[in-house]
Amino acid sequence: MATDTTVPSVLFRARDLVVPALRAAVDLLAPELQGVAAYHLGWVDELGTALAGDGGKGVRPALAVLSAEAVGAAGRIGVPGAAAIELVHNYSLIHDDVMDNDRERRHRATVWTVFGVPQAIIVGDALAALAVQVLLDPALLVPEVGQSEGSAAARLLTEATAKMIAGQSQDMAFEERERVTFAECIAMEAGKTGALLGCASSIGAVLAGAGSDTVAALDRFGVELGISFQAVDDLLGIWGDPKTTGKPRMADLRQHKKSLPVTFALSSGAAIADELAALLQVSELSEEQIVRMATIVEECGGREATNALADERLTLALASLESAAITDSAHEEFREIARFVVERQF
Amino acid sequence: MATDTTVPSVLFRARDLVVPALRAAVDLLAPELQGVAAYHLGWVDELGTALAGDGGKGVRPALAVLSAEAVGAAGRIGVPGAAAIELVHNYSLIHDDVMDNDRERRHRATVWTVFGVPQAIIVGDALAALAVQVLLDPALLVPEVGQSEGSAAARLLTEATAKMIAGQSQDMAFEERERVTFAECIAMEAGKTGALLGCASSIGAVLAGAGSDTVAALDRFGVELGISFQAVDDLLGIWGDPKTTGKPRMADLRQHKKSLPVTFALSSGAAIADELAALLQVSELSEEQIVRMATIVEECGGREATNALADERLTLALASLESAAITDSAHEEFREIARFVVERQF
Repeated sequence: MATDTTVPSVLFRARDLVVPALRAAVDLLAPELQGVAAYHLGWVDELGTALAGDGGKGVRPALAVLSAEAVGAAGRIGVPGAAAIELVHNYSLIHDDVMDNDRERRHRATVWTVFGVPQAIIVGDALAALAVQVLLDPALLVPEVGQSEGSAAARLLTEATAKMIAGQSQDMAFEERERVTFAECIAMEAGKTGALLGCASSIGAVLAGAGSDTVAALDRFGVELGISFQAVDDLLGIWGDPKTTGKPRMADLRQHKKSLPVTFALSSGAAIADELAALLQVSELSEEQIVRMATIVEECGGREATNALADERLTLALASLESAAITDSAHEEFREIARFVVERQF
Repeated sequence: MATDTTVPSVLFRARDLVVPALRAAVDLLAPELQGVAAYHLGWVDELGTALAGDGGKGVRPALAVLSAEAVGAAGRIGVPGAAAIELVHNYSLIHDDVMDNDRERRHRATVWTVFGVPQAIIVGDALAALAVQVLLDPALLVPEVGQSEGSAAARLLTEATAKMIAGQSQDMAFEERERVTFAECIAMEAGKTGALLGCASSIGAVLAGAGSDTVAALDRFGVELGISFQAVDDLLGIWGDPKTTGKPRMADLRQHKKSLPVTFALSSGAAIADELAALLQVSELSEEQIVRMATIVEECGGREATNALADERLTLALASLESAAITDSAHEEFREIARFVVERQF
């Protein structure tokens, strides 16, 4: 994996377009909900004081803006899609943090820990509804976008949201099961992570009125990129450097997560896979047991298979991009984003 | 108020049309979520065994089906709208039960108490997405409904959902405030209860391609009916007979609820209103204090004003119906539903 990844310029270009639209969308919420949303999005602190930062890396909005440019439209045509994707992504984070009982995200206290579970649930619900609203009425954010293109984009987003929720639900079901296969885990991640990235990569093209072949090729790019991203994430969750990941060493094993490397090992048929299955049932794992789990996962081929998966799916993503009728400059910027997302330090 | 209310036949006619569609919609969910949804909807018990019952009274789906018939279309044209409204209504109930920490609904254990909070959150999210999906792709349920009518219906539903969430959020904010005015409480209920009833009363007409004047008149009917319904509900919450309401005596006062009669009393300017405000701050109220609160609310005119509100808003609802270009038979059936909803025993 590369060690020197610069941030693609499209991320900054998209942020300049999307952040004002996202603020305009949040302004449509009831006043009681705006403060909680603004806190989650990193715009204000617990007391409502404005902050300089503006949330995550902005990969999804950049993909949405780029997918409009890719079919010859202005980037701003993709903005309602970018805003809607960000709203869905953030609503799912707020609800996931409640469901997973997570107290911190991006080095800040999660919404439910600051405002309580009821506020976290309702603000998530509000952002979910708002996401659909800004597409069904796209002129709220960008006057040039037509209502029929907005409706098509809303259809795409809602299908992706449903797949994301189904993936999340499968992931929760996996926690209760002793064994999960590698194929099941890939299918779950295709929904949980892939669907929204696929939607982000194609929604701008939909808003620009592109044909279904182009939209499907861009969607495929995003879905495969999502799986590749998740494979890298799961490798980092076991073998990543805590200094780089910001998480404890072998965090995913510590949390009994049935991630891609673990599920590969579990379904490898190797004799020591039973030992791994038994260790996954131990509620309080010792450091020694955690290290032993990592060794078993690696010996069963889980690390290698997940690495291969990351490479294969990145190749599929880029191949899908090749097949899409898009501009050369967008093609190059999509490749830059793909590299930025997948090539992270270990 | 009347003491002999028969169930309007349109409720049964609509149920026969809508329940199969709702089941078909729930079948589109991930398998992990279907069981939880079926439990909430009253189709199965905790163990997944089929039940004979099928949830609530079915007023909302009946309004949706009727609003298609009202503009000359077949009732089934309103079915995607009816199913979508039921999905939104039920997702909001599932989430509300978590937020309010309610352990029982319709004499059954709530979803979160049976399946846990994470399942309640995610199944609610899934139903919310599904509601929009069945409108953006209405042929999933009813092949004759066109995509542009479906998109218009989705726009209506999403706006109503956003208003419902804003109302719920205001209601939560009211709990933290010492004083809330009658007007604020009415505005909150217009969102929390009225918006979805307005949508239910007009969504079938939208799916049938009716003009905007008719849609607006039907929507207004439902919103006003919702406020009238809520006024009656709030009267029952204080002066209703526990044998009829199924709730403890003066349940709303017991729970410190800033309902319509209470907010009228609080903002009446009467000297004893301060005593009421003070009692609302007492965490564990004695029976004597609860009875005293009811007396103050009545002496400040809260009961009379809420009764008048129920009558006024019912009159407005029926007047809006008069102004709508709809069939005579639908007109009569809308009136029957209105009476059924508002005229309940004390």
